[in-house]
Amino acid sequence: MTDPRAQLQPAARVADRRQDVWTIVNEGAANSPKQPIVNMGQGFFGYNPPDFIINAAKEALDKVECNQYSPTRGRPRLKQAIADSYSPFWGRKLDPNTEITITTGANEDDEVIIFEPFFDQYISNIEMPGGKIVYVPLHPPENGATQNTSAGEWTINFSELEAAISSKTKMIVLNTPHNPVGKVFSKGELLKIGELCVKNNIIILSDEVYDRLYYVPFTRMATLSPEIERLTLTVGSAGKNFYATGWRVGWLIGTPHLIKYVAAAHTRICYSSVSPLQEAAAAGFEQADANNFWTTAITEMKAKMDSFNKIWLELDLPFSDPEGGYFVLVNMKKVKVPSGYPFPDHVKDRPRDFKLCWFLIQEVGVAAIPPTEFYTDENAHIGEDWLRFAVCKEDEVLERAKERLRGLRKYIEA
Amino acid sequence: MTDPRAQLQPAARVADRRQDVWTIVNEGAANSPKQPIVNMGQGFFGYNPPDFIINAAKEALDKVECNQYSPTRGRPRLKQAIADSYSPFWGRKLDPNTEITITTGANEDDEVIIFEPFFDQYISNIEMPGGKIVYVPLHPPENGATQNTSAGEWTINFSELEAAISSKTKMIVLNTPHNPVGKVFSKGELLKIGELCVKNNIIILSDEVYDRLYYVPFTRMATLSPEIERLTLTVGSAGKNFYATGWRVGWLIGTPHLIKYVAAAHTRICYSSVSPLQEAAAAGFEQADANNFWTTAITEMKAKMDSFNKIWLELDLPFSDPEGGYFVLVNMKKVKVPSGYPFPDHVKDRPRDFKLCWFLIQEVGVAAIPPTEFYTDENAHIGEDWLRFAVCKEDEVLERAKERLRGLRKYIEA
Repeated sequence: MTDPRAQLQPAARVADRRQDVWTIVNEGAANSPKQPIVNMGQGFFGYNPPDFIINAAKEALDKVECNQYSPTRGRPRLKQAIADSYSPFWGRKLDPNTEITITTGANEDDEVIIFEPFFDQYISNIEMPGGKIVYVPLHPPENGATQNTSAGEWTINFSELEAAISSKTKMIVLNTPHNPVGKVFSKGELLKIGELCVKNNIIILSDEVYDRLYYVPFTRMATLSPEIERLTLTVGSAGKNFYATGWRVGWLIGTPHLIKYVAAAHTRICYSSVSPLQEAAAAGFEQADANNFWTTAITEMKAKMDSFNKIWLELDLPFSDPEGGYFVLVNMKKVKVPSGYPFPDHVKDRPRDFKLCWFLIQEVGVAAIPPTEFYTDENAHIGEDWLRFAVCKEDEVLERAKERLRGLRKYIEA
Repeated sequence: MTDPRAQLQPAARVADRRQDVWTIVNEGAANSPKQPIVNMGQGFFGYNPPDFIINAAKEALDKVECNQYSPTRGRPRLKQAIADSYSPFWGRKLDPNTEITITTGANEDDEVIIFEPFFDQYISNIEMPGGKIVYVPLHPPENGATQNTSAGEWTINFSELEAAISSKTKMIVLNTPHNPVGKVFSKGELLKIGELCVKNNIIILSDEVYDRLYYVPFTRMATLSPEIERLTLTVGSAGKNFYATGWRVGWLIGTPHLIKYVAAAHTRICYSSVSPLQEAAAAGFEQADANNFWTTAITEMKAKMDSFNKIWLELDLPFSDPEGGYFVLVNMKKVKVPSGYPFPDHVKDRPRDFKLCWFLIQEVGVAAIPPTEFYTDENAHIGEDWLRFAVCKEDEVLERAKERLRGLRKYIEA
């Protein structure tokens, strides 16, 4: 079956810019001679949420009040379920009415610091209301092109971070576990960032949407100290937690004064979400432990990750072993694209990773994501040899991908 | 059962303004001595979508791809179903890929004309990105306080409309059938507005979310002439069409050049929506005719409206008979609130309709919406004697409301 996303047109709001990565990859995949393509590009799941959650959604659909408007700050049952689920991590009881909501933003003239590579959705959310973004790169391990490394070896240069801070800096956006790098920021790193933010009174938007998928110890920014918690908004996602990226249910956790501060800043990064699926997400949290869901999710995703990554050992292509999430970055410096290979116009002027991506789609029939899309032009060189693969797919899809990727061998330098 | 909305806190983004109407009404209702309150305030439905739509939603939940990301411009099946359903009204085949989408907006320094009373959601969508709003009131019938009138008698003063147009006017927002007035704009009125917009090259955002509920002939702005269509974006809503206000599935229909224009304007009034419920909405459109749904919806809503409005005849309170939608405006000028009645602080400084609303909640146990919330301060006097009642409730709820409203009799002047 052709993926319906293959018919995707460029989003209207970006029609005047260069083509976005999703369009390039999906259209390239739809027109590749290697059909059906194995799509490991976008991080949507190849399987459904567990039955107890799907059944909860169906039950909600049968209830009149679950199909009607929800309060703008979320349904009481879901806020309670999130408070119950996260209170143990915070080490105190979270108040579902004052510390959990769905609103955040940035103001005109404010500056926001974002680490590169970044999740592209943030950009329009900050720039639309007039905020200015200051980028700070994550640096890959120096030997990342020649040997296997850990995602934890992607590092912040703290001098660069300090230099990026100005009197206008209002917020810093952090993502752990990180997409696309797969890094879980260490407690030490988070403490250093947090202390800089405390010193400069900078809000920390801690995007922890992959918070249930970590393969090394995971630290939550808000739990480091009362001073840091006072500045931290934690972002969560039912779509990521429960394998349902199309449900669009997310939340923010923060102390009441911060929720208020954010309110004044007036712009929304997360939007109010759908009633029956908020109910289903509530049931997900309520019943996750009884269904052993969180531990199973980690075990199963880690098994997918390790099983898939065997292909890179086989091909002797270095990869960055993820510490969390479901994306793996693979270094393709050794892949030699034949000279004179015919790239279409919208690909030939982009960095090398776009060409690698196109080449893989056409020649082996596997779609991945070129990470320079998540870099500014200035720092794009950092990502140009890597490709991002999403492993949140059925095991047989991963096996098919590995089989196809063996076709890369003839293009790999010894 | 207490309505969960009763626990609603003020939306974070308005925390620094006066309390919004939903909070006042819902909190007032939760704390009224007349429990359980009959809530005819917010326009959520008191019953479920028909089974064929609920079943379609459940089937979608069983399909892996229906629980994952949708294209930002919407799922192909839903765009096709909307194109098929609306093409007959347009008298030509709508292109689901270029003429149907979910994005719109306004730009800095642009002016947008909005008729009062207005749907409050528009305001932040325009002001957030820096647009300026110019308001033009709808004038109620002069005898609206003394006798029953038709919602069609609320009129535009076209001199006022022309005076509101400037060289900066980029867009006009129109709503037909109108919330809260219940007016279905006549073909003649729409033509006059449309011709003004053609003359001044003004985009028409025609909010037609109640387009399947009309009790007089309904004209769609985009169908009046090719020149008007060229400027018109039509807004639709699955929540309104299919009794599921919590599903948050909406769309825009417009000619391709306009979709492109809107794209450049960059801000979104409608957001991308939830995958399984987009599928269910698609099924709704696909199967509506076979289930005789559209005609049944009109017949049933009109019966609810007429049955409920008998109470106003009984009480001799004038109402504005709606031409479409599920809201009725009732004129309460004759209701005398006892002098010295104790209003709380957040109500006593608002216009008379807020006090009437509070009084009804406390004394008869029926919640309605004060329409001055949808007016600027300057024009609030137009709405201060009216209250808005939503009749999209179960018949027994409407009967209970009528029984309670009889308790008003002792406060009504002969």
